[in-house]
Amino acid sequence: MANTFGKIFTLTTFGESHGEAIGGIIDGCPAGIELNLETVQYEMNRRKPGQSKIVTQRKEPDEVQFLSGIFEGKTTGASIGFIIKNANQRSNDYEHIKDAFRPSHADYTYDKKYGVRDYRGGGRTSARETANWVVGGAVAKQVISNIKINAFTSSVGEIFMEKPYQEVDFNNIESNDVRCPDTATAEKMIARINEIKKQGDTIGGTVTCVIQNVPVGLGEPIFDKLHAALGKAMLSINAVKGFEYGSGFCGAKMKGSEHNDIFNADGTTTTNLSGGIQGGISNGMDIYFRVAFKPVATIMQAQQTIDKDGNVVEMHGKGRHDPCVVPRAVPIVEALAAMVLTDFMLLNSFKKL
Amino acid sequence: MANTFGKIFTLTTFGESHGEAIGGIIDGCPAGIELNLETVQYEMNRRKPGQSKIVTQRKEPDEVQFLSGIFEGKTTGASIGFIIKNANQRSNDYEHIKDAFRPSHADYTYDKKYGVRDYRGGGRTSARETANWVVGGAVAKQVISNIKINAFTSSVGEIFMEKPYQEVDFNNIESNDVRCPDTATAEKMIARINEIKKQGDTIGGTVTCVIQNVPVGLGEPIFDKLHAALGKAMLSINAVKGFEYGSGFCGAKMKGSEHNDIFNADGTTTTNLSGGIQGGISNGMDIYFRVAFKPVATIMQAQQTIDKDGNVVEMHGKGRHDPCVVPRAVPIVEALAAMVLTDFMLLNSFKKL
Amino acid sequence: MANTFGKIFTLTTFGESHGEAIGGIIDGCPAGIELNLETVQYEMNRRKPGQSKIVTQRKEPDEVQFLSGIFEGKTTGASIGFIIKNANQRSNDYEHIKDAFRPSHADYTYDKKYGVRDYRGGGRTSARETANWVVGGAVAKQVISNIKINAFTSSVGEIFMEKPYQEVDFNNIESNDVRCPDTATAEKMIARINEIKKQGDTIGGTVTCVIQNVPVGLGEPIFDKLHAALGKAMLSINAVKGFEYGSGFCGAKMKGSEHNDIFNADGTTTTNLSGGIQGGISNGMDIYFRVAFKPVATIMQAQQTIDKDGNVVEMHGKGRHDPCVVPRAVPIVEALAAMVLTDFMLLNSFKKL
Amino acid sequence: MANTFGKIFTLTTFGESHGEAIGGIIDGCPAGIELNLETVQYEMNRRKPGQSKIVTQRKEPDEVQFLSGIFEGKTTGASIGFIIKNANQRSNDYEHIKDAFRPSHADYTYDKKYGVRDYRGGGRTSARETANWVVGGAVAKQVISNIKINAFTSSVGEIFMEKPYQEVDFNNIESNDVRCPDTATAEKMIARINEIKKQGDTIGGTVTCVIQNVPVGLGEPIFDKLHAALGKAMLSINAVKGFEYGSGFCGAKMKGSEHNDIFNADGTTTTNLSGGIQGGISNGMDIYFRVAFKPVATIMQAQQTIDKDGNVVEMHGKGRHDPCVVPRAVPIVEALAAMVLTDFMLLNSFKKL
Repeated sequence: MANTFGKIFTLTTFGESHGEAIGGIIDGCPAGIELNLETVQYEMNRRKPGQSKIVTQRKEPDEVQFLSGIFEGKTTGASIGFIIKNANQRSNDYEHIKDAFRPSHADYTYDKKYGVRDYRGGGRTSARETANWVVGGAVAKQVISNIKINAFTSSVGEIFMEKPYQEVDFNNIESNDVRCPDTATAEKMIARINEIKKQGDTIGGTVTCVIQNVPVGLGEPIFDKLHAALGKAMLSINAVKGFEYGSGFCGAKMKGSEHNDIFNADGTTTTNLSGGIQGGISNGMDIYFRVAFKPVATIMQAQQTIDKDGNVVEMHGKGRHDPCVVPRAVPIVEALAAMVLTDFMLLNSFKKL
Repeated sequence: MANTFGKIFTLTTFGESHGEAIGGIIDGCPAGIELNLETVQYEMNRRKPGQSKIVTQRKEPDEVQFLSGIFEGKTTGASIGFIIKNANQRSNDYEHIKDAFRPSHADYTYDKKYGVRDYRGGGRTSARETANWVVGGAVAKQVISNIKINAFTSSVGEIFMEKPYQEVDFNNIESNDVRCPDTATAEKMIARINEIKKQGDTIGGTVTCVIQNVPVGLGEPIFDKLHAALGKAMLSINAVKGFEYGSGFCGAKMKGSEHNDIFNADGTTTTNLSGGIQGGISNGMDIYFRVAFKPVATIMQAQQTIDKDGNVVEMHGKGRHDPCVVPRAVPIVEALAAMVLTDFMLLNSFKKL
Repeated sequence: MANTFGKIFTLTTFGESHGEAIGGIIDGCPAGIELNLETVQYEMNRRKPGQSKIVTQRKEPDEVQFLSGIFEGKTTGASIGFIIKNANQRSNDYEHIKDAFRPSHADYTYDKKYGVRDYRGGGRTSARETANWVVGGAVAKQVISNIKINAFTSSVGEIFMEKPYQEVDFNNIESNDVRCPDTATAEKMIARINEIKKQGDTIGGTVTCVIQNVPVGLGEPIFDKLHAALGKAMLSINAVKGFEYGSGFCGAKMKGSEHNDIFNADGTTTTNLSGGIQGGISNGMDIYFRVAFKPVATIMQAQQTIDKDGNVVEMHGKGRHDPCVVPRAVPIVEALAAMVLTDFMLLNSFKKL
Repeated sequence: MANTFGKIFTLTTFGESHGEAIGGIIDGCPAGIELNLETVQYEMNRRKPGQSKIVTQRKEPDEVQFLSGIFEGKTTGASIGFIIKNANQRSNDYEHIKDAFRPSHADYTYDKKYGVRDYRGGGRTSARETANWVVGGAVAKQVISNIKINAFTSSVGEIFMEKPYQEVDFNNIESNDVRCPDTATAEKMIARINEIKKQGDTIGGTVTCVIQNVPVGLGEPIFDKLHAALGKAMLSINAVKGFEYGSGFCGAKMKGSEHNDIFNADGTTTTNLSGGIQGGISNGMDIYFRVAFKPVATIMQAQQTIDKDGNVVEMHGKGRHDPCVVPRAVPIVEALAAMVLTDFMLLNSFKKL
């Protein structure tokens, strides 16, 4: 069950970095939805490696093949199976990690948990898995097409976009390689990533996501609060170390008299420190949250580590890796948010009995 | 299903603030565990109102009655039902919110979602529900008695405990009303809460939780990563706005060469920015995370709001409320962490087939 | 999770035969339903012991106390907690089974599985648990009040009601102690049960259930077929050995040209050997199924058995037991059917997104 | 979620009869199991069309391609993805059912439920789906290799194998086309099927399954009783109308004094009317159950039916269909039984914490 996401609208996935293909099954998708497959591929291209100079230069076409659940262009209500073939199956790049554990990777924990490990490219722990999620998210976006989901890079290392999201134009997100809608900040971020890349190092960052046009009432009380589901989704992404929504950690420094969102007569609020959710349920205001990504663990520098027998060995990153994961994480954040929102839209439709 | 927590070791709950009783059912508890019911009550007392001068002065004895699943002092493997009677059923305190929506409370969203609302004390949205969680956590702690879970107040407003957790003694946590193990900081926090209380205001804060002696291998890949489950659990607590583990949001500012945890020969790491989890699976190092709580929304000051018909009305907090929720949140954080860890211990036992 | 029934409309239960109380939590009940609590108690009375001369003479008032989820007579969408106090806690009746295993009871398997066993009255394995189910079913019936569910006794031992259900009046079901709507057959069944009772023996039987006025479209494809969910529900009842729907086991003897239900122009069918379900989905015709109950294992005769140490011992049934479980099973069958139908009505409402 | 089978060891599936491929994802398979892929293919061949003269003459190679979760011949604990390409995509055979509803098929209910329908070969409702189940079952059998699962044809129409299963040799099951271990009966069954086939008709039958060498303790109380899970699994197979285990419907005619299984000193029982399960939990004796299959609905005779607009039309079966589904159902029954047993073995391993 660990490979299934969602409750009603679910995505179940499989696949290793260097196997023949990865893929998944979307279940619970309502029938009768006209699926635009080009839009799905567009989202895949936003995530794929090699798309710009500041991301990994690996080449993967990342073409999705849908195998079921769609008939004459429409969803039928049946489960939607898909695969994405792996172009990149050269496993000689990974002989050096066959018996040694990369620092701050999951090699050690998988080895101890399972006793057997597909070491090639990290196997199942590879972020290649997130290509499956983007497929699920791209379908979800078409199910809840009224809801607008925009994620963007809000910081790289110490460089933050200082403007509030209300002051930028989301149409700019795709206009630069780092996916920050504020052009001046984007340039600084790109320069920083290039500098880090030259050092053979990597750097962390944050992604902010804004969800607009959400109806009031999404979210289930107690253990399926909307923000808790969003948080769990984001914490499932490789390299994520933190999640906050609305006022977040800043809110923990505030007083109630400062923090409370006062109602307007129409039920909207004058401020939105709540982040669009009250008691776990959407209130119709913008939902926004921020996700923290640690720096990529694979660096092009020598590091000391251990092998399976506990011998200390030296390791040096090989292959083509991202100096900063954040630009490619933007569509992944959106994809997971779209699946969560779709799931809660469906869960909320119950009350119509 | 929104009222059930966990997958194998589950807690399903019911109850409103001003009903006759709240309660729950613990399912999936292994058989043959000697349950110390005094320990359960001790945890209840840590959470209950009226325990010190800096928390709400409401009186609730919060006595747990176990109704099943225990025979001659041991768990039988059957579901464990329990109830906690509500002493405090005076609902006249709440007539003023019958038709009006309290700012930054869930009154509005529940009303819109369900069309009907038990307004007395917030009904199902009341943090009284967390008393049920403490019961579940107190049982869970006895199932995984080798694992040590310690939460404490790490900040109140702008006052932070600056020392790393390794430099304080967890035995001090219960020695002061605010549950900060650093006595000097605790005094400042208490003074700050008293000041805020006099203003009729409230203040936010953070709780840090440290989990020690965790075996390697807990956590399931992809969508049930250990930290994602902990994050979702914490984000289920009333007033929580953020969750971070290990390096957290600070990690997003760092370089890979700084952030990677280098292995010792025995599989431990020299640093622990990972926070005890790699790839979603525990690595045997300390697990630690931090939870952000916004200030309590009910303040003893006049606030403008709206009623059901959209009329603007003035509202003034009544009753006995916490000026800062953090001290009483400490046992709640521990309880949820204990349930998550128990669940994952059980999930991990599968591989023994 | 073994103590939870359903997916969306769920019932989670607890309680042993001789504990202080049994009870449960109904989750996923839509908000705004006016609950008639007298109707709930009426269903409880149909199941309770001591109601007639042909059932066990134990006395249990079986009064349900609702503790949450209902406000001013209506469901609020919150979980509905309830308890039923056990009047009958005399455990001296059960000392003789403390160390010995009753034949064809679950004493042996529970002892081997859990190592600890609440032997009093069978503990968790007692059919007392089904009182909780009747509460869940009585609430469910009010959620789907348009759907008509009628179960009745269709055989006791070798005595069968020969008439098809279309030729009897369901209003007669409650007119006799055995709950068979055909009066002549009912009399024979009652005579047979009285005869068996005098012998200190017990006898099996079957219950037929007819569900009418079901909309087309209930049931989910592949692994949540409507009849599969009904079958699983019925097989959960103590003493059930078989389930068939529509033509059932007789259908396995037939030819396709005999068995196919030919359509009328309006989508109804001329015959209904399908039993109202095609491909796991309701087709709007009557759903009907039959459930087989073995004879009650506790007999008032001496039987040889073994104790915990494998010694052969003689055992003699004590206490007050049913000579035939079928009359009291009728409301239990209905209750589970009602919960299944409610769950699938809710599951089917998804498509309305 | 309707396309997922199981709780811990799960199979999620996709695919239509005439799409490019069907397939599935096995999740929760323990790591380190050496998978014999030839054995998987052997099971596929037992199910596939065209294998003998008494089954459909369609040709499908039914080759399974595993795409993940296996490394160097062993399971890794990761999800196992697989696909089976459809050789048979000629959809012109199905133009006649594009707008008309076949009697006793799911065309009508799917059309009404979803509004859109992949009519080619029945789409998702086709028994082709069961090829996916056989893959899941073939993997499951290797996880629980100590448990012996044997299904066989126990009746075709009115022809029953009269011998108890203890008196036949399961090694004979594969020795004849109808899969009945009693050769004399098998011959009669085959003759009957050939006769029916000539008439352009079809006939029902039953499959009996015997599960041996099961440890004591499998099954979870109350709502996950072992026989209830087996029953639900069997009722998920296309054309199944009934399920009984142990004494089954015959048990409903018996007296307690006849039906009770008396213990031997070692905990085994002298008789086994219980069918190896007490209180939902395996007792170590043979588990056996019987499954009723209705006759295949597609017959090679003219039948009256309706089209989408309610017009009465005449329909005549086309294509290559089974005159009797039972011989090919045998490996499907075993596959589902194997998945259920594996799931409950894993669920039972929890108590080892």
